[in-house]
Amino acid sequence: MKDIVYRLGPGCEVDDIVEGNMYIGKVQGFATFGTFVQLNDKTKGLLHKSNVLTEKQEHDSIIVLVNQVRPNGNIDLREIVIPEGSYETQLVTKKITLTKLSDLISKIGRNVTIEADVVQIKQTSGPTIFTICDDSGVEDAAAFTEAGVRSYPEVNLGDIVRVFGEATRRNNQMQIEVSGMQVLKGEEADNVRGRINRALEARAEPPEVTPLVKSDVIDALWPEMRKLAKIVRRAVLTQQPIIIRHHADADGICAAVSVETAVTQFIRDNGGDPDQDNFLLRRSPSKAPFYEIEDVTRDLDMMLKDNVRFGQKLPLILLMDNGSTEEDMPSYKMTEVYGPDVIVADHHHPDDTIDKYLLSHVNPYHVGGDFGVTAGMLGTEIARLINPAVESRIVHFPAVAGVADRSEAPELDSYLALIEGKYTRDECKDMALSLDYEQYWLRFNDGREIVKDILNINNAPERHAKLVHLLVTEANAAIEDQMNTMMPHIHDQKLTSGANLFLADVEMFAHRFTFPPPGKSSGEVHDILCKKYVNEPVVTLGLGPDFAVIRSRGVRMNIPQMVRSMRDEMPGAGISGGGHLVVGSIKFVEGMRAQVIEKMIEKISEFPVTSL
Amino acid sequence: MKDIVYRLGPGCEVDDIVEGNMYIGKVQGFATFGTFVQLNDKTKGLLHKSNVLTEKQEHDSIIVLVNQVRPNGNIDLREIVIPEGSYETQLVTKKITLTKLSDLISKIGRNVTIEADVVQIKQTSGPTIFTICDDSGVEDAAAFTEAGVRSYPEVNLGDIVRVFGEATRRNNQMQIEVSGMQVLKGEEADNVRGRINRALEARAEPPEVTPLVKSDVIDALWPEMRKLAKIVRRAVLTQQPIIIRHHADADGICAAVSVETAVTQFIRDNGGDPDQDNFLLRRSPSKAPFYEIEDVTRDLDMMLKDNVRFGQKLPLILLMDNGSTEEDMPSYKMTEVYGPDVIVADHHHPDDTIDKYLLSHVNPYHVGGDFGVTAGMLGTEIARLINPAVESRIVHFPAVAGVADRSEAPELDSYLALIEGKYTRDECKDMALSLDYEQYWLRFNDGREIVKDILNINNAPERHAKLVHLLVTEANAAIEDQMNTMMPHIHDQKLTSGANLFLADVEMFAHRFTFPPPGKSSGEVHDILCKKYVNEPVVTLGLGPDFAVIRSRGVRMNIPQMVRSMRDEMPGAGISGGGHLVVGSIKFVEGMRAQVIEKMIEKISEFPVTSL
Amino acid sequence: MKDIVYRLGPGCEVDDIVEGNMYIGKVQGFATFGTFVQLNDKTKGLLHKSNVLTEKQEHDSIIVLVNQVRPNGNIDLREIVIPEGSYETQLVTKKITLTKLSDLISKIGRNVTIEADVVQIKQTSGPTIFTICDDSGVEDAAAFTEAGVRSYPEVNLGDIVRVFGEATRRNNQMQIEVSGMQVLKGEEADNVRGRINRALEARAEPPEVTPLVKSDVIDALWPEMRKLAKIVRRAVLTQQPIIIRHHADADGICAAVSVETAVTQFIRDNGGDPDQDNFLLRRSPSKAPFYEIEDVTRDLDMMLKDNVRFGQKLPLILLMDNGSTEEDMPSYKMTEVYGPDVIVADHHHPDDTIDKYLLSHVNPYHVGGDFGVTAGMLGTEIARLINPAVESRIVHFPAVAGVADRSEAPELDSYLALIEGKYTRDECKDMALSLDYEQYWLRFNDGREIVKDILNINNAPERHAKLVHLLVTEANAAIEDQMNTMMPHIHDQKLTSGANLFLADVEMFAHRFTFPPPGKSSGEVHDILCKKYVNEPVVTLGLGPDFAVIRSRGVRMNIPQMVRSMRDEMPGAGISGGGHLVVGSIKFVEGMRAQVIEKMIEKISEFPVTSL
Repeated sequence: MKDIVYRLGPGCEVDDIVEGNMYIGKVQGFATFGTFVQLNDKTKGLLHKSNVLTEKQEHDSIIVLVNQVRPNGNIDLREIVIPEGSYETQLVTKKITLTKLSDLISKIGRNVTIEADVVQIKQTSGPTIFTICDDSGVEDAAAFTEAGVRSYPEVNLGDIVRVFGEATRRNNQMQIEVSGMQVLKGEEADNVRGRINRALEARAEPPEVTPLVKSDVIDALWPEMRKLAKIVRRAVLTQQPIIIRHHADADGICAAVSVETAVTQFIRDNGGDPDQDNFLLRRSPSKAPFYEIEDVTRDLDMMLKDNVRFGQKLPLILLMDNGSTEEDMPSYKMTEVYGPDVIVADHHHPDDTIDKYLLSHVNPYHVGGDFGVTAGMLGTEIARLINPAVESRIVHFPAVAGVADRSEAPELDSYLALIEGKYTRDECKDMALSLDYEQYWLRFNDGREIVKDILNINNAPERHAKLVHLLVTEANAAIEDQMNTMMPHIHDQKLTSGANLFLADVEMFAHRFTFPPPGKSSGEVHDILCKKYVNEPVVTLGLGPDFAVIRSRGVRMNIPQMVRSMRDEMPGAGISGGGHLVVGSIKFVEGMRAQVIEKMIEKISEFPVTSL
Repeated sequence: MKDIVYRLGPGCEVDDIVEGNMYIGKVQGFATFGTFVQLNDKTKGLLHKSNVLTEKQEHDSIIVLVNQVRPNGNIDLREIVIPEGSYETQLVTKKITLTKLSDLISKIGRNVTIEADVVQIKQTSGPTIFTICDDSGVEDAAAFTEAGVRSYPEVNLGDIVRVFGEATRRNNQMQIEVSGMQVLKGEEADNVRGRINRALEARAEPPEVTPLVKSDVIDALWPEMRKLAKIVRRAVLTQQPIIIRHHADADGICAAVSVETAVTQFIRDNGGDPDQDNFLLRRSPSKAPFYEIEDVTRDLDMMLKDNVRFGQKLPLILLMDNGSTEEDMPSYKMTEVYGPDVIVADHHHPDDTIDKYLLSHVNPYHVGGDFGVTAGMLGTEIARLINPAVESRIVHFPAVAGVADRSEAPELDSYLALIEGKYTRDECKDMALSLDYEQYWLRFNDGREIVKDILNINNAPERHAKLVHLLVTEANAAIEDQMNTMMPHIHDQKLTSGANLFLADVEMFAHRFTFPPPGKSSGEVHDILCKKYVNEPVVTLGLGPDFAVIRSRGVRMNIPQMVRSMRDEMPGAGISGGGHLVVGSIKFVEGMRAQVIEKMIEKISEFPVTSL
Repeated sequence: MKDIVYRLGPGCEVDDIVEGNMYIGKVQGFATFGTFVQLNDKTKGLLHKSNVLTEKQEHDSIIVLVNQVRPNGNIDLREIVIPEGSYETQLVTKKITLTKLSDLISKIGRNVTIEADVVQIKQTSGPTIFTICDDSGVEDAAAFTEAGVRSYPEVNLGDIVRVFGEATRRNNQMQIEVSGMQVLKGEEADNVRGRINRALEARAEPPEVTPLVKSDVIDALWPEMRKLAKIVRRAVLTQQPIIIRHHADADGICAAVSVETAVTQFIRDNGGDPDQDNFLLRRSPSKAPFYEIEDVTRDLDMMLKDNVRFGQKLPLILLMDNGSTEEDMPSYKMTEVYGPDVIVADHHHPDDTIDKYLLSHVNPYHVGGDFGVTAGMLGTEIARLINPAVESRIVHFPAVAGVADRSEAPELDSYLALIEGKYTRDECKDMALSLDYEQYWLRFNDGREIVKDILNINNAPERHAKLVHLLVTEANAAIEDQMNTMMPHIHDQKLTSGANLFLADVEMFAHRFTFPPPGKSSGEVHDILCKKYVNEPVVTLGLGPDFAVIRSRGVRMNIPQMVRSMRDEMPGAGISGGGHLVVGSIKFVEGMRAQVIEKMIEKISEFPVTSL
């Protein structure tokens, strides 16, 4: 058996030295009476000149035996010459008392040892900042080698490390001034990782709340909602940035703002810097109800740059009122290459092929529900699972969302009942219209504070009332003006099926680049016509130069199928589109507009009318 | 009458203690010989064990009587037990010597007391930073409780506070390290607020300058201009951000840049951080000569976020060459909900209904003037009232603005006379054309330094000359190219009124998305035609797909009235628009283009020609 | 001869004082026994009251003679009264040991003297930061007078200064705490400037590398490439920001990314802050293959603001695959006014008139080459001259660029041979298509990390493979869809010349606002037709509303000449355009579309067909 030469690990002190043992040290300097040998950063001994055997220079390695540890802590050494290969080196690790990150504040000025997961590494022009996460919390550890030089280059994002250092308060934030850092490996790392993971799992576990309303659909979705909420909570606990992408309409806004509210509060509750939500959480309204290739490109561009520049983790992407259809596929293929986690809460008809790209997907269709259980309802329940403390502030969001999306699901009535005495259905409708109108002018900004006022979560009920009143008034005036312009130009036609078909040109006979936009304008025209032809089947086509918006009542339409067959029958018309059965849209190339409209009328004529 | 128990206020010292009085204190700690009692942050006394009556723990409240204040400052106490309700508590406030913020620099390292208004509260990840403003200036006060935790949560924006602390220099900026802060209430607050207000009023008062030129209109506007200048000065003195929104043409730029120049210098003169103007002052060119709903939405979105994130005051919004018409109404309704102050200096025909939304409105029409007294003239005079020191740099702006807007007011000649020997009328015209051309490419960026060079206020006359020469040459080449393209396609028509009508298609027969844009192109066409038909009445219509630009000479037009009657007569044409009597524009839906043009020609025919 | 009164310069100490000499000093204060006189910041002497001649106040100037310098360093003075004009003042400069900036780290805590060039001056809210550059490196020097007040206002950007101060580490970056700073003038400055310049020249000199491939064209361009590389290296060494503007296609990206890679590494190698490349280097893809007026306007706006706000030098502008034609002229005229340096590496046919605006212009046409030696090839060779260490990472860029631009130059084969075994021609083609597709969605963002993955320089070959596979698949699917839409609507016509002419409407019969865009769509159509009519001459016109894209094979076209003659023959059609001989585009006003197409067909008919 080989001899053992010990190496005194970081953090070890004189107490950890055993007389008679051999240690490997480093020559620190020379005095007239002998040589000082450093056994680690903190501990040095004296090699009296009588005990020197070989000629060394500063910084040379040297093997010594500890003759004596004197009562005053002085260490007397003797040099040992022992052939390489004839001994084994063994690390002496400090019998350490681990400190939890959450206890750091009580240890200011003292040396601590932490075992943690590295969740961010940022090279500053001075020290390297390692953000570390243990089973109790998250803090920064600053290590300095040379200005702008990466300390501990062997430490990577996701490693389990043991950090030694002094607990300090810098700019009044807790920080560890690192004196040593070890990457743990194998079983040791697994143990720590296991401990952190178990703690994180436990801390990420959503609290035991039950749905706000009685609903078979929501009950059936509950496990998946808990799962999604847990992923979000875990992201917050491990400093993973979160991007919420959502459809820029009232339902999507309600969904996203409910989660935004819960997450912001959850960050604060977990000791987050008050400004941190600006870095860790971004809410981005998206034009389309799917994750467009342009959006994913911008998100990836930004997140990869932040990853390189700030050592920031790739974000968790949460899609709301958005993300469940085949149209999202190209974007998911991009996320798959780079690997950010993607989760979805949507009420559009889901396409199963996308699920392999998602960590979690909450969708009422998965459990026999339909789009009547809107994204805003899902979002509010998920928000409560993330942080139930925000419930009272967002409890009316499901009703606003449901009214906005004209939900006919029984859940809407339950959600409305829940807020009886606080908000009427009309008030919900006003908030929904205000959101749509304001978002139109916000374009793709989140308009955070204004949106909070519209939804009355800014603790300023008078301002809320004034704002909603103003926005509703302005929106209705704009709609009325648009209708006055459009209605005189509607073409109507009695179809062979008995349905009334109306053609409204949203390009040539409508105000453009203003509220209401084409889709909304078509809807308003359709509503007017439905009221006028109260007991008759009505189909309204809002016609643009290269698209048409379709709304119908009293006709057993199947728009996705119609679009598919037109695509097959009209090669060269560049047809695409889809939507729900009775509400949808179609795109085509402008040069084929007349033929496409003719074909569409022909197809619509074939759908049977239903009794109203 | 109840007994009085005193509470030693922050800042009080041993001198403020009266022997024999009772004080309420806090148990600080225990020694073998007795208990230490803290009377406030700075002052503690000893309660000898012989004088202890009740059992207490650390931090417990305790009532004590001061037996003696020893010469060395030691305080001997006796515990008193006195039933709650049987005594009144009274605060001992330090007989304090108030320090003015402007004197802080002479007190570094010493304790000071300040009475001031809280103008900004920013929670950092360390201390809470209160920006405070007294009658002498503005500084920061940093208070720390716990990292990232709001100190003195009872203190709100706009409160009057008494701040105790040490005058320090941090990052070489004066700062108060807060040891105590009290919100003053009632009379005391009113007194301080009164004092600050009076001082601010006095400091905000514009200096006694007189208009640059003799003008009845400007003389009549002078009081309102002083009022507006005072609001701007006061904003600077209280750290209120300022947004200058202005029409993106030469007149609007001259107006806004003159005020920008004055305010920037005024910030510096008042000790502002040299980078502060980047945060406190933003100049935004606006496409339309009114405050568009999209612009106000973006402004509100940003200002509300800054308000939450940085505790920044809502800004003062200054609209220039912009803001006085009915079209601004929707935006004012939005500002009214949120309450930022809005002021206007404009020369468009004002609509009285908007004045209730404005703190000040300078407009020549209010005093019998007209648009000939342009915004650039108004802006320059206002800038002098804000800071007369900048006069020599901006003295030529009124002439540039007047020439740009083809002012026929006598004021223009006076302003030109003022700069005789420095700039000719042609040079002013060149600067105006350069501004228009450069702003076209800047889109809605302010182009600050380039604009300053065009206006020759960057102290680089050679560069100015070179730049203006280049821009004028390029602009004229572009105009010539556009005219060569457009002129062969002009349709002309002799109206029954005898006027010559010319139709120029600015969409189909003009370069698009380049300089000159449609409005400018129409104007250039009109100018050419006026020269050609020198003694005849000329009306030029620049026709786009859904709009027309109207210019006329020698016809007694009333465009606003024409637009109104067309709107009534052609429901479904989506008509809107207006402008001045003889210069204006009309918008309509593209599908009604032919009918609208026909109707417009009919209407124009009805206007009588005038002698030229 | 006049008497000499010495003035003790900054940095001088008691050793520099000569007994018996007269000095000019400043009264520092009064004691009972006399007056203290400051001779410079560090040195004061005592003027015993018996030696006082005149009455002075604090801070007054005073002339004294040094009686004695005592062994303990005390200096005894005697006041001298000597009429102004009767003496000369002479500065005593410390016999100084100059420290090189690169040695600063070894002098921490010690006083140093540096002679350097001022390359940046930034006024912070605290000290003024002078970034200085000597013959060894670049560092910051911080000088403080009063918070936010400019120290040493006499020092300007570009001055040669002697800086005295303490070498410190602040935020762990080297910095000099300035105690004195002198602007050197005349010969002294010239000497230092000469020394710095010679050192910079030497350090900027590209290393001795030879071209990657044998090529007469590249050999002939080598001196100019060295010159351009040297300018870039010198910019890095003097902290001049660099803007790389490049055509947003695969060739342009390869060119720009190769230089970006070399420069980034070069900044790091020269001790640059790891975040510095984000400030010092910006890569901006440009839509057009020329420097558009809108782009130069934005660049100038930003650079001038940074110049004022951060005292940053005007940048070096490097145009790649861009910049060599007449169309760049308006932008160059703007850069000329402001003076940022502009250099070009392009393979478009150069217009000689622009060269007077450029410091360097690398272009194969200058040496008898043509566009087959693409910008990506030039860029890669230049990158190696900037920093040969990056060669292995970018060695395949020329092949990707060449394949992308369908180069028929022999150089392409050589570059392909160079990477044999690493990348096939098809893999290069895939990278090129991926770049084009991804850039389309990136719009005008640089997409740095994604682009690095496409080009496989992120050290992640698997991710590269996955990403390129995905992008190629998506791009090809989009192209196929576009072709299915377009091909049924192609109009064909046999020209009298025998050529087949095909008209493809890229507006009315193509998907718009998606990939592939019109130019690319036309190219794909042309490729299909060329394959179909394999031995026949083919001309394809991609027709938009106001533009046409022209591709031809087997016809001896001269598009630039055709456009010129059409412009002359059709005044009022607003014709412009150009391109290469057989590939190009033409713009016109929409209202003249039919006539322009007719005329174009007439012109094309006149070009003779060639044998294929």
